[in-house]
Amino acid sequence: MSTEIRTDVVVVGAGPVGLFALFELGMLKLRAAVVDTLDMPGGQCAALYPEKPIYDIPGAPSILAGDLVDRLVAQVAPFEPAYHLGQQVTALAKGEDGLFHLETSKGTRLAATAVVIAAGAGAFGPNRPPLEGLLQYEGRGDGTGVHYLVRRREDFRGKRLVIAGGGDSALDWTLSLAELAEKIYVVHRRPQFRGAPESVARMHALAADANGKVELVVPYQLAGLAGSDGRLAGVEVRTLEGQSRMLEADALLAFFGLSMNLGPIAKWGLALDMHHLVVEPSTCQTSVPGIFAIGDIATYPKKLKLILSGFAEAAQAAHAIRPLCRPGEVLHWEYSTTAGVPGAAS
Amino acid sequence: MSTEIRTDVVVVGAGPVGLFALFELGMLKLRAAVVDTLDMPGGQCAALYPEKPIYDIPGAPSILAGDLVDRLVAQVAPFEPAYHLGQQVTALAKGEDGLFHLETSKGTRLAATAVVIAAGAGAFGPNRPPLEGLLQYEGRGDGTGVHYLVRRREDFRGKRLVIAGGGDSALDWTLSLAELAEKIYVVHRRPQFRGAPESVARMHALAADANGKVELVVPYQLAGLAGSDGRLAGVEVRTLEGQSRMLEADALLAFFGLSMNLGPIAKWGLALDMHHLVVEPSTCQTSVPGIFAIGDIATYPKKLKLILSGFAEAAQAAHAIRPLCRPGEVLHWEYSTTAGVPGAAS
Repeated sequence: MSTEIRTDVVVVGAGPVGLFALFELGMLKLRAAVVDTLDMPGGQCAALYPEKPIYDIPGAPSILAGDLVDRLVAQVAPFEPAYHLGQQVTALAKGEDGLFHLETSKGTRLAATAVVIAAGAGAFGPNRPPLEGLLQYEGRGDGTGVHYLVRRREDFRGKRLVIAGGGDSALDWTLSLAELAEKIYVVHRRPQFRGAPESVARMHALAADANGKVELVVPYQLAGLAGSDGRLAGVEVRTLEGQSRMLEADALLAFFGLSMNLGPIAKWGLALDMHHLVVEPSTCQTSVPGIFAIGDIATYPKKLKLILSGFAEAAQAAHAIRPLCRPGEVLHWEYSTTAGVPGAAS
Repeated sequence: MSTEIRTDVVVVGAGPVGLFALFELGMLKLRAAVVDTLDMPGGQCAALYPEKPIYDIPGAPSILAGDLVDRLVAQVAPFEPAYHLGQQVTALAKGEDGLFHLETSKGTRLAATAVVIAAGAGAFGPNRPPLEGLLQYEGRGDGTGVHYLVRRREDFRGKRLVIAGGGDSALDWTLSLAELAEKIYVVHRRPQFRGAPESVARMHALAADANGKVELVVPYQLAGLAGSDGRLAGVEVRTLEGQSRMLEADALLAFFGLSMNLGPIAKWGLALDMHHLVVEPSTCQTSVPGIFAIGDIATYPKKLKLILSGFAEAAQAAHAIRPLCRPGEVLHWEYSTTAGVPGAAS
């Protein structure tokens, strides 16, 4: 059994909000460790849409999600938090010593005075279409097979694609990949799309283009996959009336949203409201003293699911945690313009 | 009398938080105007410490206050808010039409459904030392005379300076200007300084240096100014026992903090708590429906005076204001990654 690592605070989730919690805890001179199921920091921003621009981070008129993560990691670095990546917190219990004892799927054991849950949508994953043999086509890095997100646009250059779904992801990637794919079939179960009106209009314009590169296949649903040896050859689609078509394709991009799964967190005895953790907004403390929740996983009246709100919640939580970790110590708090950060030129 | 300008929201204060409120209101398709007493946007960040680095803006490991302001102005630009600068809101009253009617010191007249007060510390100004003839030495841009802030370090190159005060501003500028001034006298009424221990140690090291460039003059207080025709020649200092010295100097930099003055805002009938406006934190609404307050001027239990907190409050306020301006309209709210901002490449 591994040695238990003692720290002040364990942050569960290394998405943008979890990362910024490490910064705020560091500013208050608290030691922190962070655990994430992904093998890199950044959460959804890093794993699902690193190349999407975000416009509502204050002071960043436009920043790619992946760049935001890189900058947060750099901002946190002076405080040297311990990263425990590629593992899930599987157990959490309060000991008679008053500390929280955590264990991860890799056997890492941590003890902390407080826990901050910044797990976003929880252990998230794509909604998979119910197609036989689906799994054998997943996970290919060469722009062929079945995908639920676009990690690198370039992978799809010159490929024949089936893009399935009727929301913004399907629309946005149709517009974007039309620039480099050989052919795109857009499959949706009804003629109406749910996305931004401007995107819908632009997709219809592409589909009306004489070059035939983008073809709307509506109202059709995915019905089957054709291929062999893990190599996709085509996607079968079908109307509700049973009319069928085989679309020759190198890749299927299925955008049916994410399923959210709180995972082990749901079993820690914290008050829940519709799969979210209920917190007192001024401290972000959950129903269990010493356990805090911030970002998309936290809820309170009029909560906005903005990254920015999660950042501010990280600050509130850190300030509420300080006296738990350093009881009786007066906080000589200073503005960052005065106190700086470790290693910063002053 | 000027024509009254009708808008959805008037933001009082164009500091970072007021600027970001313009962004959040714009994202919700509300028209906004902003009024500020300064003749440039940015508030204290622009006017008092544009060259100071800020470390706690999420995603910006280190950013100069002036650069933060520039980026916020750029972020807001797509929404084309109306700037009314160099003027103070002198009157605010709710009309029988249900709108707020505002008037500024320049005679600008505005009508709005809601008002957001983001006035920071209010109409702020330096605490002036009580010295005869002080005002005649103020306002010179050539690094001579009396100053309460450093707008451009370079102005003080080769100058003989008296820096007065015992806090971080006095310390930080002593350390910084020692690199380029000819001579610095540091005057403080007692031998102990209040600043960061590391800064105090560095200043003592400079004062111990054989080159004599930095000289501690403690415990002394400012007693008088010598000079003629608005040109400073020296600063007289005196101990409590009446012992006096004349320090030959081109400039006096007095760092005795800022006085805060709510100005006309104090007369608008809003609930106050120690010179701050009391708000309900989930909406940032003050005691008067339709008037909101965000940033340093707003208070609620466990409020943190962080720029970040003000940014998040701006989002909460904007979302609370939307239904007041567009009653009955369903908000089809989208993430910025999906909706983008006007003019952004998508």
